[in-house]
Amino acid sequence: MRTLCEDIKESDIGKEFTFKGWVMHYRDHGGLIFIDLRDYSGILQIVFDENIEGESFKSAKKLKNEYVVSVAGTVRKRPDGTENTGLKTGNIELLVKSVEILNICEVLPFQIDEETEVNEFTRLKYRYLDLRSKRLKDNLIFRSKFTHLIREFLNGKGFFDIETPFLTKSTPEGSRDFLVPSRLNKGRFFALPQSPQLFKQILMVSGFERYYQIVRCFRDEDLRADRQPEFTQLDMEMSFVETNDVISITEELFALIFQKLLGITVFRPFKILDYDEAMDKYGSDKPDTRFELIIHNLTDIFANSSLNVFKDNIQKGGVIKAICLPDGVNLLSRKDIDELLNTVKEFGAKGLAWTKIGENNLLEGGISKFISDEERNNLIAKTGAKNGDIILYQSDSKKIAENVLGRLRLHLAKKYNLIPEGRFDFLWVVNFPLFEYSEEEKKIVAVHHPFTSPSVKDLNELETDPLSVKSDSYDLVLNGEEIGGGSIRIHNPGLQEKIFKILSIPDEEAKIKFGFLSDALGFGAPPHGGIAFGIDRILMILRNEDSIRDVIAFPKTQKAYCPLTDAPSSVNETQIKELGIKLRETTVI
Amino acid sequence: MRTLCEDIKESDIGKEFTFKGWVMHYRDHGGLIFIDLRDYSGILQIVFDENIEGESFKSAKKLKNEYVVSVAGTVRKRPDGTENTGLKTGNIELLVKSVEILNICEVLPFQIDEETEVNEFTRLKYRYLDLRSKRLKDNLIFRSKFTHLIREFLNGKGFFDIETPFLTKSTPEGSRDFLVPSRLNKGRFFALPQSPQLFKQILMVSGFERYYQIVRCFRDEDLRADRQPEFTQLDMEMSFVETNDVISITEELFALIFQKLLGITVFRPFKILDYDEAMDKYGSDKPDTRFELIIHNLTDIFANSSLNVFKDNIQKGGVIKAICLPDGVNLLSRKDIDELLNTVKEFGAKGLAWTKIGENNLLEGGISKFISDEERNNLIAKTGAKNGDIILYQSDSKKIAENVLGRLRLHLAKKYNLIPEGRFDFLWVVNFPLFEYSEEEKKIVAVHHPFTSPSVKDLNELETDPLSVKSDSYDLVLNGEEIGGGSIRIHNPGLQEKIFKILSIPDEEAKIKFGFLSDALGFGAPPHGGIAFGIDRILMILRNEDSIRDVIAFPKTQKAYCPLTDAPSSVNETQIKELGIKLRETTVI
Repeated sequence: MRTLCEDIKESDIGKEFTFKGWVMHYRDHGGLIFIDLRDYSGILQIVFDENIEGESFKSAKKLKNEYVVSVAGTVRKRPDGTENTGLKTGNIELLVKSVEILNICEVLPFQIDEETEVNEFTRLKYRYLDLRSKRLKDNLIFRSKFTHLIREFLNGKGFFDIETPFLTKSTPEGSRDFLVPSRLNKGRFFALPQSPQLFKQILMVSGFERYYQIVRCFRDEDLRADRQPEFTQLDMEMSFVETNDVISITEELFALIFQKLLGITVFRPFKILDYDEAMDKYGSDKPDTRFELIIHNLTDIFANSSLNVFKDNIQKGGVIKAICLPDGVNLLSRKDIDELLNTVKEFGAKGLAWTKIGENNLLEGGISKFISDEERNNLIAKTGAKNGDIILYQSDSKKIAENVLGRLRLHLAKKYNLIPEGRFDFLWVVNFPLFEYSEEEKKIVAVHHPFTSPSVKDLNELETDPLSVKSDSYDLVLNGEEIGGGSIRIHNPGLQEKIFKILSIPDEEAKIKFGFLSDALGFGAPPHGGIAFGIDRILMILRNEDSIRDVIAFPKTQKAYCPLTDAPSSVNETQIKELGIKLRETTVI
Repeated sequence: MRTLCEDIKESDIGKEFTFKGWVMHYRDHGGLIFIDLRDYSGILQIVFDENIEGESFKSAKKLKNEYVVSVAGTVRKRPDGTENTGLKTGNIELLVKSVEILNICEVLPFQIDEETEVNEFTRLKYRYLDLRSKRLKDNLIFRSKFTHLIREFLNGKGFFDIETPFLTKSTPEGSRDFLVPSRLNKGRFFALPQSPQLFKQILMVSGFERYYQIVRCFRDEDLRADRQPEFTQLDMEMSFVETNDVISITEELFALIFQKLLGITVFRPFKILDYDEAMDKYGSDKPDTRFELIIHNLTDIFANSSLNVFKDNIQKGGVIKAICLPDGVNLLSRKDIDELLNTVKEFGAKGLAWTKIGENNLLEGGISKFISDEERNNLIAKTGAKNGDIILYQSDSKKIAENVLGRLRLHLAKKYNLIPEGRFDFLWVVNFPLFEYSEEEKKIVAVHHPFTSPSVKDLNELETDPLSVKSDSYDLVLNGEEIGGGSIRIHNPGLQEKIFKILSIPDEEAKIKFGFLSDALGFGAPPHGGIAFGIDRILMILRNEDSIRDVIAFPKTQKAYCPLTDAPSSVNETQIKELGIKLRETTVI
């Protein structure tokens, strides 16, 4: 019988046990050899004493780091002064009677748990070694507890875990699909799901009322730092609900997760911001509310500005918006301000106007001389600026000014450490526009997806002024990251058709792509809505990691490649031929 | 606030509630309209009374089956004599005060819950309607409870739920892979996993010791009745274990499932049969042990048979084996025996010899006259045959005789109802051969997969007589269906290489296909083993269904096609081009 390292306590002193695990920190002290034995529970110090058990001491001489061993012996107290308070078993150790080497280990390409710079490719190639590090091991164990807690909660709430297909049809999220050639139906392709959106709605029409799934989803994107071609989603859908029902059960779930897994009591209800207000105050639809630096709208104040740039912009329908950086005079040198100008230009700004607040609320530097006393008084009143602050202005279209200041806000917060450590700020952003105009596609597109329900109050404007229509949608933001999003869905087949028309989706295309959902809505679909959460992203935040790769067991590189298995890889010609496809001549392998 | 239909009890009589759900069984009785309201919890009878609530009665006139409604009213006792004892809420009903129609329903292509013959294609096309039937709904709810119970059990046992990739590399199960063309690495392909076998072994090398996952797997096979291109597996792996550890935790799991979900106490430990004995007595490596009809080996008895066919066959190294069908004289007419001959020929038999047992153990008919008294006495003693039984013989190679009689055994059991209803018979089959000779490939192949550990006792024969070597493997059989299988794995890289050599896998191929696992074994791999279970198959048995399609929410047809979504489907030329592939000219869309 084997015992786990961390199952041993001081009360076990004098008793005999067998442990199995990996050798760590082999130390040869002459007549004594010490190793730390590591199993999945933790670490226990093992002692081989030449004078007490000569045979096992001889065997111990052969041990090296990461050898796999079985050791039997007696638990004893560590000598006074040699305790390790950093270890759960730091007061005890095992004096070995017998040892068996279960497997050896070749020379390691890098040391476990060592934070030296080993390139990520090598770490991923030897992922099994990197996963032995405490940090990654703890991340994956946390992940297992995290998903199990979610399941326990949702099962307790009457949700059913229902599996949806992976070999399916293009989903309407709008990203590129991974395709799977069909051998039995040559010339046709399955798509791997970008989400189970259509299936979960079909399940509502089927009468399952409360569905969830923790499910892999796929997007063939040009990868950015925090994306993976496959990612895991907590997917939920409920019938006979409104926005508040979805919000309420989500908050209950996250409160439970934070309490049980982090020991943190989350304040409920979470803050709620209208999309319009989020854009206005934070220049983002996923504001980081852990710090202030709110964006102020100064358009009214500068309506008659003597600064032509401001005046002309306002007359063209533009806005003047600004951030007030407290103590900016001390934080920002003249050089810093010049650098900021370059930064905001990268964000799409034309320039960066600024003023310092001096004594007696007098403005200094930058565009100060163009600001009248009245404008100044209104400015101070509106922004709450005080002596030593710096105000940073954008004069541009609403969209650009908000976007630039939103990004500048994050930039300043990071640069000047305005974000409190260890704080978790939940925020709902609601009432997104239903549509937006895509300059790229030259047409109206859905902000979320075409199944999102318009707000009932805006239904009359649907055809006359679609861009003014809001949706029954909600995004959950944590520390400035969108961690989930959802909506109440359309359950009326007539309304669904109307939306397809506004989106200029031809009848034929709508029928081919989503026809089965439209059909289903005609057969007694209940009102329903749901939400989906990005599991990898959430875990990255909760584990305080910089990359989602650190919370995934076997992630791919940013080039969608797996150094461990060498996937994707070449396949033989027969396999390709059987699928009714061939490589293009221009494709280089 | 909405209440669920089956949350209402007689103690709620007189109270007011609101229910939401679907209209079933609309009955217009003049001044009274009755409907059954169905939500996911169950059914409640709803009454609209013209004399009490005229307005809602008028609305009720518009209702049809499968309309979605919200009804508010007062719970009352049903009049004496109108109770429905088949319903949990059969003593009460709701007298409606107000009703709101939430959605209508078009004319149904088939009636919900009606067992009339609607072809499966139509049922799958309108899967959302078929899923409203009590049978399928209950199957999926059972499935959700089933998987959750598994997770609770394994989490309680210290297992970690760790997700493995879907976009990966060919796995070694030997079936055909589904391939996914890579856009970012053109000319290369991902494979969808046939199982997470390699990854779970890598996780053991990583030190996670106890892994599980309920995971989708994929096989691009020519589909048979009980196969789907995607299926769900409970996948487990443990470190520092032997066969008995895996068997023990499996039995504990199934005992819990049967107790909690079926109310059945399973007898433990499960029966264990050696592979050799299973083949000998049941002619199958997955015997159905719910009934006897054991196969007897009569080769010794007929060593000097006067029947040339027997004698010649034995001299060539063949066997004489037989089944004794109790009361066969009454069960089998002469015509039935002729039909059986055709049946066994389909199974690959050359013929079918038989004898009846008459009074005083005298043999009658068939080959009786070729059987000596001594042979007869031995035959009776060995088979336990008695007056009225029929003995059915096969004289052939061991392999064919056992296979034919194994299938004949099942055929007879089904035809003559020898299988007791409602019985669940678990059986372990262990000690499979490590290798077998593939006539097709003209070489030695692995019976399970190349990572299966040989039995320690047979290690010396590995190179001299590989086909005699047994493996540390175990299959779990339930009612004659293989529901799971696994093995202790090789953790020694040298032994692993030796196995690849015996399997004539060239070094280069082994390196490309499994090199990362072989490498990993060299870096301190612990002894480990595991098992995987077919979730769909198990659910089919527990739910007493004939097809796994009835326990899957959105199954595909036997042609791997989804009538609901029309997947797989055509995709546009741009999508295909981006992947660096094109359709072959001969491929007809």
